Amino acid sequence: MLIVLSGPSGVGKGTVRQAMLAGDYRDFQYSISMTTRNMRPGEVDGVDYYFRTKEQFEHEIATGGMLEYAQYVGNYYGTPLKYVNQTLDSGRDVLLEIEVKGAMQVREKCPDGVFIFLTPPDLSELKHRLTGRGTDSAEVIEKRITQAADEIAMMANYDYAVVNDKVDLAVKRIERIIESEHLRVPRVIDRYKSMLDADPISQSK
Amino acid sequence: MLIVLSGPSGVGKGTVRQAMLAGDYRDFQYSISMTTRNMRPGEVDGVDYYFRTKEQFEHEIATGGMLEYAQYVGNYYGTPLKYVNQTLDSGRDVLLEIEVKGAMQVREKCPDGVFIFLTPPDLSELKHRLTGRGTDSAEVIEKRITQAADEIAMMANYDYAVVNDKVDLAVKRIERIIESEHLRVPRVIDRYKSMLDADPISQSK
Repeated sequence: MLIVLSGPSGVGKGTVRQAMLAGDYRDFQYSISMTTRNMRPGEVDGVDYYFRTKEQFEHEIATGGMLEYAQYVGNYYGTPLKYVNQTLDSGRDVLLEIEVKGAMQVREKCPDGVFIFLTPPDLSELKHRLTGRGTDSAEVIEKRITQAADEIAMMANYDYAVVNDKVDLAVKRIERIIESEHLRVPRVIDRYKSMLDADPISQSK
Repeated sequence: MLIVLSGPSGVGKGTVRQAMLAGDYRDFQYSISMTTRNMRPGEVDGVDYYFRTKEQFEHEIATGGMLEYAQYVGNYYGTPLKYVNQTLDSGRDVLLEIEVKGAMQVREKCPDGVFIFLTPPDLSELKHRLTGRGTDSAEVIEKRITQAADEIAMMANYDYAVVNDKVDLAVKRIERIIESEHLRVPRVIDRYKSMLDADPISQSK
């Protein structure tokens, strides 16, 4: 099963992903992204990112090797398809932690994936703030409303909305989602059906 | 949110429901069924069932008062609509524990409900038995295959399949499903959208 964790920039996707990797629930494999940006001190190729040249990255794009990719500040970032497919073929879940644009590319290619939208806690508290005692200026409020409208529009393309109020709570919610998704009938019924096909009696009928 | 727990007869739906009611997770209200069968020693009207006469039950059916109903061995069993609606309107989840025929009636009326199919543990172990060392007779195997085919056909109409291998594990899985379903975007996005509508600035635009 492909699990896509995404959300607006600054929501804390990376922190939640790191907490998931450090936690007890490890029934998934994290898909390491590929980038053309320079390695920073302490980063390791193949751990933090696959660090590649622009030419290498563009070759991957041209040969269909990227599940999703985008450019930020002159650098490419993306998910190599090969590793995702290998892990899924081995029967393990794959976790992607990517930007919303990339997530929408994945949604088109993998509609069966589980798409989780991490929401900023102040989005769910927005009404409280907007109808509150006017501590925010009209300008600040208007800006936050525009941003909230954008965030809600993004959310509409996802399966689940998880509030990142506390990292450990967000992680627990995501883990529950993963476990529940594995019980969904469309994901399990073929396994049940195949048991019947394997039976010698019904085949001889 | 309406939660429908169902499954083939003998799978242990009642036991799982009772364990849910006795457990720590109580963010739901159990919907008591109505029946025309006689009260048994120790049973209480309004606790175990709403005990009604055949005439009263048929009056409910005629006036659209039943969410679902069926007859078994000459008696009616069913779910009164009024109580379900009252509880849903109050914002609480409602749990129904009903037979598969009734569940399909509810599915038609409440497509947004969460439909959970409890599966017998030997269904998931069926392949093992069928391809095993032949301790079952051909007759027993054939009968179990027919039954399994029926169970899998029923399962196709549900959202989730939960194996009832151990009652406490089945309960945990159901609780996780309920919690995750509450995070599904179609269930929450209107609440987010309504925050924007409530805002005085965007209304004045």
